[in-house]
Amino acid sequence: MSNSSALDPQRTVDELKALRTLTGDNNGAQRVAFTNKWMEARAFLKKKLLELPVEVITDPAGNLWATLKGESEKELLIGGHLDSVPNGGWLDGSLNVLAGLEVLRRLSAQYGADGGKPPVTVRLVDWADEEGARFGRSLYGSSAASGQLNVHEAAQLHDKDGVSLGDALMNVGVLLADAPKASEQLKNAAAYLELHIEQGPVLEGMDLPLGAVLGTFGVERHTITFHGQAAHSGSTPMNVRKDALLAAGKLSAEIYTIAERHGGVCTIGSVKTWPGIVTSVVEKCEITLDQRNLDADNLAAMWQGAQDAAQKFAEEGSCTVEFGHLWNIEPIPFDAELIEACDAAILEVTPTSHRLPSGPLHDAAEVARAGVPTAMLFVQSLYGISHNKIEDTKEEHIKLSVEALDRLTDKAIAWIQQH
Amino acid sequence: MSNSSALDPQRTVDELKALRTLTGDNNGAQRVAFTNKWMEARAFLKKKLLELPVEVITDPAGNLWATLKGESEKELLIGGHLDSVPNGGWLDGSLNVLAGLEVLRRLSAQYGADGGKPPVTVRLVDWADEEGARFGRSLYGSSAASGQLNVHEAAQLHDKDGVSLGDALMNVGVLLADAPKASEQLKNAAAYLELHIEQGPVLEGMDLPLGAVLGTFGVERHTITFHGQAAHSGSTPMNVRKDALLAAGKLSAEIYTIAERHGGVCTIGSVKTWPGIVTSVVEKCEITLDQRNLDADNLAAMWQGAQDAAQKFAEEGSCTVEFGHLWNIEPIPFDAELIEACDAAILEVTPTSHRLPSGPLHDAAEVARAGVPTAMLFVQSLYGISHNKIEDTKEEHIKLSVEALDRLTDKAIAWIQQH
Repeated sequence: MSNSSALDPQRTVDELKALRTLTGDNNGAQRVAFTNKWMEARAFLKKKLLELPVEVITDPAGNLWATLKGESEKELLIGGHLDSVPNGGWLDGSLNVLAGLEVLRRLSAQYGADGGKPPVTVRLVDWADEEGARFGRSLYGSSAASGQLNVHEAAQLHDKDGVSLGDALMNVGVLLADAPKASEQLKNAAAYLELHIEQGPVLEGMDLPLGAVLGTFGVERHTITFHGQAAHSGSTPMNVRKDALLAAGKLSAEIYTIAERHGGVCTIGSVKTWPGIVTSVVEKCEITLDQRNLDADNLAAMWQGAQDAAQKFAEEGSCTVEFGHLWNIEPIPFDAELIEACDAAILEVTPTSHRLPSGPLHDAAEVARAGVPTAMLFVQSLYGISHNKIEDTKEEHIKLSVEALDRLTDKAIAWIQQH
Repeated sequence: MSNSSALDPQRTVDELKALRTLTGDNNGAQRVAFTNKWMEARAFLKKKLLELPVEVITDPAGNLWATLKGESEKELLIGGHLDSVPNGGWLDGSLNVLAGLEVLRRLSAQYGADGGKPPVTVRLVDWADEEGARFGRSLYGSSAASGQLNVHEAAQLHDKDGVSLGDALMNVGVLLADAPKASEQLKNAAAYLELHIEQGPVLEGMDLPLGAVLGTFGVERHTITFHGQAAHSGSTPMNVRKDALLAAGKLSAEIYTIAERHGGVCTIGSVKTWPGIVTSVVEKCEITLDQRNLDADNLAAMWQGAQDAAQKFAEEGSCTVEFGHLWNIEPIPFDAELIEACDAAILEVTPTSHRLPSGPLHDAAEVARAGVPTAMLFVQSLYGISHNKIEDTKEEHIKLSVEALDRLTDKAIAWIQQH
């Protein structure tokens, strides 16, 4: 059990509010990566870190690291991101960082009081540009560290004002070409922890404050285009129509069956119709399909199921169908033993834990991809809403989440020692 | 039986081709109402009429009338329209007029050879601006005659270049304010006949050249908007979604059941989604619904059925629904005895007739609304396509249609004499 007397979760709430005041406005958080507000947020963090016996560096990708040396070179990493989307929420990413700061404080107090060190090295990382809000490439900093950042592709990215990612990085003292050197930072990493707001409705729906994350969903993202035939809405009997919308409409219901069968989620987010006029049968209907699953085989089965259903519905209506690839990523499961540790940490601060997958991606996924055993804690989001100024979490839940991260830190340290 | 030796259906085919050459281009027919090409088409017609013992006038709405005086003041009207949509087909409207011209020739030859007259007066009318392609108000000329044209509303209409309908009419010698006086033209009308291409696939699907039209469909045209809730495609479980698209998708299939139950047609022609992005459940989905039926009660039942289904699907998905009125018109049935006469005329020139409703509106609907007993003949359209340069009908079918209109004319004359 940790010496929790030094942990002050209320301080985390207060610091989150101070950060909101410093870097937000009436429309929400404005800590977009590589902007002045983001730099102000980092200065806020650095000032707090100066009070602790930690070494602070910025790595070649622009990630900020605060290192509390331990008896062992093996490192426990605790991560988050201060950057936000424009008009974002006060907790997304910042909770992770400021809760990690509070854990560093507790560790410093516990082990440093008599000149000692924690058993393993503990590092807090503030990843650069998790959101990708400005350049359209999320997880920039963590993917540089994980070896997944393609520098040539990244060099092509520009913001809406035409500023390149390279120039934006230069402005904060980072050379894009050097970004992959950030992978050095993971060489002693033995485990990675991240606390995050859920950004979904599951925990709120179960009336639970905290959950252990199983991993991040794999994603299959495609366009599906049905081709039928335009025909006059008055003169064309129903039984001779080639109605491209009918096929899409059937699929909009079928994806619920597909998701239930394979334990994932499926979303048709956009529908476009041509010619799209009141007096014509739909000739062409293009939809987007986003499918997510924690299991690679189930994800593949979901996508196959959607293709088979689309083909069947097209044929039933004498239409044809074509598929266009938008994006995909494999599922990234977290470490089974660290997930156990998450559950145990949660159960020390609240009566019930719940395991759930993460729909959104997180920096944790990049770190896990790099082979570092990883776990995440989710804390309940009110209304399931994020990336919006109304994003919120009850203060009592924020405080519980800081406590749970603190308990999990001790468990992870012990786990590292055993390996 | 008529003296058909004077009828030359091949001449109608030849004149249709000559008109196409005169007033069309590589993109199709260009006889948009009140334009120079339309005036040229009318000059072409007038020149042909000059060879016949008919009186030609233009009424106060701009409709052209050619009158072959008969023994009785009772009038049989044969109608069509030379105007086309931009890039239109060669037959839509023109076949009606030029077939009517051929019937006038036959009547003139049969009755005028010895200085006589037909038993009743027969008039050919070329309605002005049936298509409404330029000002968005179809059936302009026939609605002026039927008393359905609202001059104040019509005065507000402008084409895409900002020219008002009033100015366009002035340019061809018509005062919009005088248009309602065209109703005088119907005061002796005892019956109205119109031949038209089907503009749909029914007769082609049955391999029949000709059909008798039962009337024009009534139309209910509405928007239906489903309101759900935007939610992240990754973090929102399927069972808590309020998916506005799902409700619309179910309705896209349900309208086929509704149409079958009530013997009409239903079309969802346009779907719009908000926010319409791949990573969000659809918050708002707006569709257009166009329903048509020949029977007023069935039309009302179809619209009620659609509203009930939309309400049910919305509730099933925890969404709400609202309805917006776009346009509606009641069904206009044609005269039962004249429909019988159509069938009989068709059976004199081909072994099988078929009765079918008209999905599109026609000038015949306006005349019927004015209380004139009305009938229409449909001739097969290839591919069911109209309002397009590929609009076509087999020449043998065009010739059969001229013969059938000629036979129907004699039957209608006899019918008028009996009333």
